[in-house]
Amino acid sequence: MKLAICGLGHIGGSLAEALNGHVELAVFDRDPISRSAAAAAGLRVVDSEAELVRFDVVIYAVPTGAVLSSVKALLDNRRATGVEAPLVVVDLASVKSGVVIPISELVRSDASVSYLSLHPMAGREGSGFGSRDPHVLDDAIWAEVDTSTQYGSDLVIAVLALLSRQLRACFLPLSVELHDQSVAQVSHLPHLIALALVRQLHQSDHLPVVELLAAGSFKGATRVAATDPDRILDLCWPNRVALKAALADLSALLMEVEGNLSEEEEVSLYRWIRSSQLAGQKRDDPNPTSIIWRGDVSEVKGYLDQIRNSGRRIIETSNEGGYVVLHTI
Amino acid sequence: MKLAICGLGHIGGSLAEALNGHVELAVFDRDPISRSAAAAAGLRVVDSEAELVRFDVVIYAVPTGAVLSSVKALLDNRRATGVEAPLVVVDLASVKSGVVIPISELVRSDASVSYLSLHPMAGREGSGFGSRDPHVLDDAIWAEVDTSTQYGSDLVIAVLALLSRQLRACFLPLSVELHDQSVAQVSHLPHLIALALVRQLHQSDHLPVVELLAAGSFKGATRVAATDPDRILDLCWPNRVALKAALADLSALLMEVEGNLSEEEEVSLYRWIRSSQLAGQKRDDPNPTSIIWRGDVSEVKGYLDQIRNSGRRIIETSNEGGYVVLHTI
Repeated sequence: MKLAICGLGHIGGSLAEALNGHVELAVFDRDPISRSAAAAAGLRVVDSEAELVRFDVVIYAVPTGAVLSSVKALLDNRRATGVEAPLVVVDLASVKSGVVIPISELVRSDASVSYLSLHPMAGREGSGFGSRDPHVLDDAIWAEVDTSTQYGSDLVIAVLALLSRQLRACFLPLSVELHDQSVAQVSHLPHLIALALVRQLHQSDHLPVVELLAAGSFKGATRVAATDPDRILDLCWPNRVALKAALADLSALLMEVEGNLSEEEEVSLYRWIRSSQLAGQKRDDPNPTSIIWRGDVSEVKGYLDQIRNSGRRIIETSNEGGYVVLHTI
Repeated sequence: MKLAICGLGHIGGSLAEALNGHVELAVFDRDPISRSAAAAAGLRVVDSEAELVRFDVVIYAVPTGAVLSSVKALLDNRRATGVEAPLVVVDLASVKSGVVIPISELVRSDASVSYLSLHPMAGREGSGFGSRDPHVLDDAIWAEVDTSTQYGSDLVIAVLALLSRQLRACFLPLSVELHDQSVAQVSHLPHLIALALVRQLHQSDHLPVVELLAAGSFKGATRVAATDPDRILDLCWPNRVALKAALADLSALLMEVEGNLSEEEEVSLYRWIRSSQLAGQKRDDPNPTSIIWRGDVSEVKGYLDQIRNSGRRIIETSNEGGYVVLHTI
């Protein structure tokens, strides 16, 4: 399997370094400085996007707004050069609406092309190839978004097995809508809150006093405010519909708190704190080292065999809320 | 100097362990189990609150709602037993309105009593003596709230010098109002946001999918949601007026974001992200290892001598926004 990674930012660079030596790998970035840095780091670099047509698997780790045009260029080039070998296209976009449906339509016209839409729920502040970390993706949950295209080819299974084996990836299958709503709530909204808290701090009449008093709770909540602004924009703008809904939900909860703070007695506030915490205690379930798959286990038998071959052991299979959960060690 | 710490929760327990061996120290807690645990940890324990009258310095690390009655009991006992030796009362309350003015009035009638109102901006989740950590207060900023009582006695300076020497405490003097407004913004509000985010997660129709997707930004923002609920209540309820104002400010900023997400083009959102971040870049100033004091340096000459005697070196004295900032190494 010849695998190419297109896009050498934080995620693409980290993934390339983690997979290097474990698969026949090459990388590409439109920025020649990133390509030089990748070559200096010991990665095999291709110097033209057109060369990606020669690979079995192409993983796009480019900004959300650039995914569709990049994939379209690859498929056009494939047609122009008459390549007919099986191909797996993988996008790692942070927001899936605007990406998955158009790419699925492009792919559907060519039976030899499979399309995986993945999103590793990991990464840190920083951007560019220089911020890569080969371990930042270790043990991550990977959203695996339904592309409604042909699925389960040997090559697709080989890609998933590679990620499972090298990065201990856990795949969580879900729809475009559920993915985008979920990341709005648990990733994009916390970024905007972090920025709002920093902005609020700065608007105080009493800087630097207020900022000197900021302790752990503030620092934890605002850590991601330092993320590259282009990256925050790339998360939030394409997902603005879901993000506005998540923001409205949070605002309603903050109004609940405001109501509790306005009562005569503290009992309502206490109940609100306590019931929020009891909700939070469920967060350790289900076991986050599980591999989760939609539908019936028999449908993914080839995948299960690959998992077993990769050395992981499936200790239990259960069905939780329509999902097959494979507890593995 | 004989020093007692009353209240062996997370802060009182941590402070006791950090100071043990560096001052003639005893501790007290109304809970006999905490007293036994403290004795087992090698602390000298007094078995009755009445015995606190025999100490030169009594530091109250009790819940905010219990500070005033505890100090009143000490002063009543002092009067009843005819003790006239100099005394420094120290409260470590998290919220100062409702504490500082009534205690200042109690203290003002006895010229031999000084009153310091401090608040170390540190601590972690967890509660009770078992959660203590002798290093959790290291290098912290300590809010030093104006009590409008006599000030600068040798005993007061000795207390500040002890904390400066053993914990590298940096004192930040400020008014009751500014303290309570500031902690509402940089501590209490982030706690409520953490709880709201956890609550929002739980209200999702798609648990456990959504929680499996939660990555670093969500975990950072919600880390403090697991704090003991009594402790969160003790932070938020006494400070509800300032907290409601901070909540209203944040809600207005979130409305700004909502407006930016509703625009035709992404440029407003980008500008908002960028300008929030530029605000945040000021957060490293002034040097957080500074000791900060209100008023003229000559007024705190005795304190400065103590600092020098403690082995720290004052490398620069500047005046920033009405505060004397002593840059020390």
